Amino acid sequence: MKQIKFGLVGLGRIGKIHFENIRLNCENASVIAVSNLSLDNVKWINKRGVKHIYDSFSSMMLNDEINAVIISSPTSLHSEHIIQAAGAGKAIFCEKPIDLSLERVKKIHALVKELKIPFMVGFNRRYDPSLMKVKSDIKNGIIGKPQIIKITSRDPEPPSMDYMKTSGGLFLDMAIHDFDIACFMNQQKVISVYSSGTVFGNPNIKKLGDLDTAITTLTFENGSIASIDNSRKSAYGYDQRIEVFGNLGITASNNKLADSHYFVDSNGIHNSNPLGFFIERYSESYLLILKKFIYCLLENKEISNNSRVGLNALLISLAAKKSFEENRVVELYEFDN
Amino acid sequence: MKQIKFGLVGLGRIGKIHFENIRLNCENASVIAVSNLSLDNVKWINKRGVKHIYDSFSSMMLNDEINAVIISSPTSLHSEHIIQAAGAGKAIFCEKPIDLSLERVKKIHALVKELKIPFMVGFNRRYDPSLMKVKSDIKNGIIGKPQIIKITSRDPEPPSMDYMKTSGGLFLDMAIHDFDIACFMNQQKVISVYSSGTVFGNPNIKKLGDLDTAITTLTFENGSIASIDNSRKSAYGYDQRIEVFGNLGITASNNKLADSHYFVDSNGIHNSNPLGFFIERYSESYLLILKKFIYCLLENKEISNNSRVGLNALLISLAAKKSFEENRVVELYEFDN
Amino acid sequence: MKQIKFGLVGLGRIGKIHFENIRLNCENASVIAVSNLSLDNVKWINKRGVKHIYDSFSSMMLNDEINAVIISSPTSLHSEHIIQAAGAGKAIFCEKPIDLSLERVKKIHALVKELKIPFMVGFNRRYDPSLMKVKSDIKNGIIGKPQIIKITSRDPEPPSMDYMKTSGGLFLDMAIHDFDIACFMNQQKVISVYSSGTVFGNPNIKKLGDLDTAITTLTFENGSIASIDNSRKSAYGYDQRIEVFGNLGITASNNKLADSHYFVDSNGIHNSNPLGFFIERYSESYLLILKKFIYCLLENKEISNNSRVGLNALLISLAAKKSFEENRVVELYEFDN
Amino acid sequence: MKQIKFGLVGLGRIGKIHFENIRLNCENASVIAVSNLSLDNVKWINKRGVKHIYDSFSSMMLNDEINAVIISSPTSLHSEHIIQAAGAGKAIFCEKPIDLSLERVKKIHALVKELKIPFMVGFNRRYDPSLMKVKSDIKNGIIGKPQIIKITSRDPEPPSMDYMKTSGGLFLDMAIHDFDIACFMNQQKVISVYSSGTVFGNPNIKKLGDLDTAITTLTFENGSIASIDNSRKSAYGYDQRIEVFGNLGITASNNKLADSHYFVDSNGIHNSNPLGFFIERYSESYLLILKKFIYCLLENKEISNNSRVGLNALLISLAAKKSFEENRVVELYEFDN
Repeated sequence: MKQIKFGLVGLGRIGKIHFENIRLNCENASVIAVSNLSLDNVKWINKRGVKHIYDSFSSMMLNDEINAVIISSPTSLHSEHIIQAAGAGKAIFCEKPIDLSLERVKKIHALVKELKIPFMVGFNRRYDPSLMKVKSDIKNGIIGKPQIIKITSRDPEPPSMDYMKTSGGLFLDMAIHDFDIACFMNQQKVISVYSSGTVFGNPNIKKLGDLDTAITTLTFENGSIASIDNSRKSAYGYDQRIEVFGNLGITASNNKLADSHYFVDSNGIHNSNPLGFFIERYSESYLLILKKFIYCLLENKEISNNSRVGLNALLISLAAKKSFEENRVVELYEFDN
Repeated sequence: MKQIKFGLVGLGRIGKIHFENIRLNCENASVIAVSNLSLDNVKWINKRGVKHIYDSFSSMMLNDEINAVIISSPTSLHSEHIIQAAGAGKAIFCEKPIDLSLERVKKIHALVKELKIPFMVGFNRRYDPSLMKVKSDIKNGIIGKPQIIKITSRDPEPPSMDYMKTSGGLFLDMAIHDFDIACFMNQQKVISVYSSGTVFGNPNIKKLGDLDTAITTLTFENGSIASIDNSRKSAYGYDQRIEVFGNLGITASNNKLADSHYFVDSNGIHNSNPLGFFIERYSESYLLILKKFIYCLLENKEISNNSRVGLNALLISLAAKKSFEENRVVELYEFDN
Repeated sequence: MKQIKFGLVGLGRIGKIHFENIRLNCENASVIAVSNLSLDNVKWINKRGVKHIYDSFSSMMLNDEINAVIISSPTSLHSEHIIQAAGAGKAIFCEKPIDLSLERVKKIHALVKELKIPFMVGFNRRYDPSLMKVKSDIKNGIIGKPQIIKITSRDPEPPSMDYMKTSGGLFLDMAIHDFDIACFMNQQKVISVYSSGTVFGNPNIKKLGDLDTAITTLTFENGSIASIDNSRKSAYGYDQRIEVFGNLGITASNNKLADSHYFVDSNGIHNSNPLGFFIERYSESYLLILKKFIYCLLENKEISNNSRVGLNALLISLAAKKSFEENRVVELYEFDN
Repeated sequence: MKQIKFGLVGLGRIGKIHFENIRLNCENASVIAVSNLSLDNVKWINKRGVKHIYDSFSSMMLNDEINAVIISSPTSLHSEHIIQAAGAGKAIFCEKPIDLSLERVKKIHALVKELKIPFMVGFNRRYDPSLMKVKSDIKNGIIGKPQIIKITSRDPEPPSMDYMKTSGGLFLDMAIHDFDIACFMNQQKVISVYSSGTVFGNPNIKKLGDLDTAITTLTFENGSIASIDNSRKSAYGYDQRIEVFGNLGITASNNKLADSHYFVDSNGIHNSNPLGFFIERYSESYLLILKKFIYCLLENKEISNNSRVGLNALLISLAAKKSFEENRVVELYEFDN
């Protein structure tokens, strides 16, 4: 390929980010088609212009000009879209999680491997410049061998109840990013998971069997440990911190603050709160992950965050959910058949 | 006006920023014409598209569709362009400094006032979100009455010798931003200026009669004082800090760091350096100042950083230069007739 | 009492801190006797002066002038000394942990309650000025209801193997401080404990059945959760951080740095490492806890960190140890009979 | 000498710090005599014990056992006490400023040189651990050649009017410390001084001819520049910062905060204010300067902050005062005869 021509399905918040990033900031790539456009988005898409608009994903897949797809449709439709795109031989960029069902994700993993479909799962945080520096410190031996990984991941507000109903819950929808980052940093196999959690906010979350507050401990094969704390509601805004402790020191990423203003009065020194929400905080990584995908396709390079990565993160998320539900340590081998 | 249609002259680094900001991020505005395009920029402009390309600024001014101009040409051409644009009744956005000659700036100030031309000088830092918070703290009485203003403004690298030859020198080209910000924050008249400075870097700078290092003290009418330190070369990158001390405390803006990564080892805690250069640091303010200009034109609002603001900053810069050259305190009234 | 006259047993590192704090900084109190003086300490004590030196703790207890004791002897002797002091009617300040045996601590708890002996356990960190501010923020509702508590507690170096043999291990010797602080902040009953841990340093630690790295999750009755990470060896020095997250925000204590120096070069911004070890970091709290003990005795006030507090922290520590050994979640009620 | 036996005159705040530091923390030294004890201090001194109490400084000087003096009497008495101590052959530690009169300080400088009296002026900040690191960074070439020095020095509250009447004013009493530190860091000769200042607080300060707010620019022989800002009243407490900018970067000392507590809520991130006042902030340097003095006497080493250092700082202070009074740049050579 010399030029990536994308078909895109799903113009929610994240689909729009991808669309705009390709339109404004990616060389050698364009979105030439979208499908399943909601009425709300007709105006949005007309303003920006797109060559083809399809009623269905399957008809879009018949367009031979398209050589890659972006799947940012609701999670429940991912597997269907992946299977069609794979069948049509398109390269696939799919938002996380690939699917809520372990069985289906295993099948997809087998399918794209068999068909040799280039496949990337949208764990964009791996491409955040600060997190990439954490990763490269680890690779370069700056902190020696990782021993303790701590991740704080708190949203400013819970999503709508409607969204939460089908999201898969805190572990599969939200913490899955953090589980992936822990594995990305440590490059070790998780052997057991323990989650303690509860609902402190809207009691309807409890009725869904979901939770809004959790701490999860991941134990890796070599004895290293990760602790991930999640909250759906943080009064001071989006909180995204990671710290990796090794025998030679720490490498870490702190919150990015909204601005560099501060003031000092008789009560103390006052700095601004963290930057907005994921759209602001991870604006760079949303662009960089796509650029990487495009680069891998154009240069025929292996994709590192592939379906195996998506499968691994799902397994840990399912184990965390089970641990919470059964109030016990869950070994990963329990999922092994 | 319902839609601002810009003619733009000068597609250097800053002209390009303005062009792209309008193209991608401003509603109700577009650049419909450019003039005096260099060969280098033909390709750049063709890629983005523009309705009209003119050989000369004067011929562009004949286009009645254009209702406003952006003047980001070399400083030596500003006054000519301003006079032509004013004659054609266009609203004017002009980069700083308006001109290096006090006489000419006074004339321009009189002209745009007489002709009632909406005029904005490009002191974009006034629209930096962090600096706007400093300003609003002062307005809201958070720090009481400003007493001491400290500004640190250091570039990562000096500009080319070619640029420096016509730039007007450190005070008129670089420190003028900081003098403007000091006045913006304090809203007091400067009565005297003292500058001490030297050349620590390239000795050719000295041959130009210019300098690369200076500390300037501004004394305001009510006794409050500003200290501005400038360097053309900072080993750790672009350094942009301001602190305003009043009887109730401090309001300030610190450097924005390049990222939120840090690491800790046996030598200490290590954070990243400040963000790039002015293009990165002030990306938001370059957009916001244009949005404000467009807003003022569309809504028929008064422009606060007008020709008087440009004249005031020039006066202080000239006084600083004189103070350095004559090694004495220069009173502003010396310039008054 | 109008004046506290202490008998002190155990002039190790911490015994010496207590001795000097009383000598130099406490009004209305003095150490008038020491017992079980090692040869090494004879010179040390002579230089400072003490009225009585006893061969045995029991003979010191016969001195009626003494109205309170400081027990900073090895943990294995605590219970013996406590029982003798209680029998002699002395007020008791005992270093943590009270004892490694749950049974013995329960007996001591019952004994001092029955005899109405004023008893304080040496959880000095409760009196650290920064931690006291965290506590008072919680009390004052600044962060609403605590939901997530995170404690990082890492030593610069492991203690000697000799010390570790009798210390009770990482949970009973080191993490017990952190468990106590978590309870102090949350004022909730712990219902279950999960610890994951390993040995990354000296393999002899493993031979002792001990560990040098652990993350412990405490789940409280109301669903709130604490995560405590411990390491015996931190390359960048003593690391003591706590963060309490509630529905209105965070209250926290960061590391105190060794000094306020920093430098900036082309590699970044470099700050100094945390302050020394516990003797430097908690110098204030070692003094303030004794002052509080003296105050409670003189003013006849109730002691808040009493034998129940010591018992509670021991229970959690034992549960953490069991959890680690059995690789499962341990419920606190398992210890209830 | 094998043991320094001090006579001390002047038990104000600083005299007491010296007395206690020697009593509690200095080996090989003791205060064996005090003179000119005020009634208020009799009780204070009795509690601590001192061998000899003299009515007059001159009679104290007759005691041959005394081999060094600490002069922390009011500034107006310094020269008299110095002359007597020098006549008696005692080593001299004298608080800053040596005297308010340039002539007298020149005479003292000549006298102690002629008589080879070990003489130290109490510029204790040179021994602050953070400032010593700034100094050693400069010495070690970490920042290359110093170009810009910035010092912020603000007191939480002005002293009493009674004190201010005889203090010599802001430049001789307060800024003199900062001028000394600027010279200590730069090791360059100051050639000119410019001060702008005013009174923002108590108008009685103006009646004294004094000021409470000033910015002073020092220009050094090699073109490097220092900017020092002073205020007698800072709403958020004692503010002590220094930053030295060189061609390779910055070395600096920030404020030490009162504690390591912070909290975060919907309004931002809130840290504690700077540590108390000079007694808390410079507690270490008050001890370390005395230890250095004692060390120099015992080991027969040269004293670096000697009478020449005191004279130099006074000259700059007088130049700053003159600059303020005459509203002009003052050249140091104006004082040269």
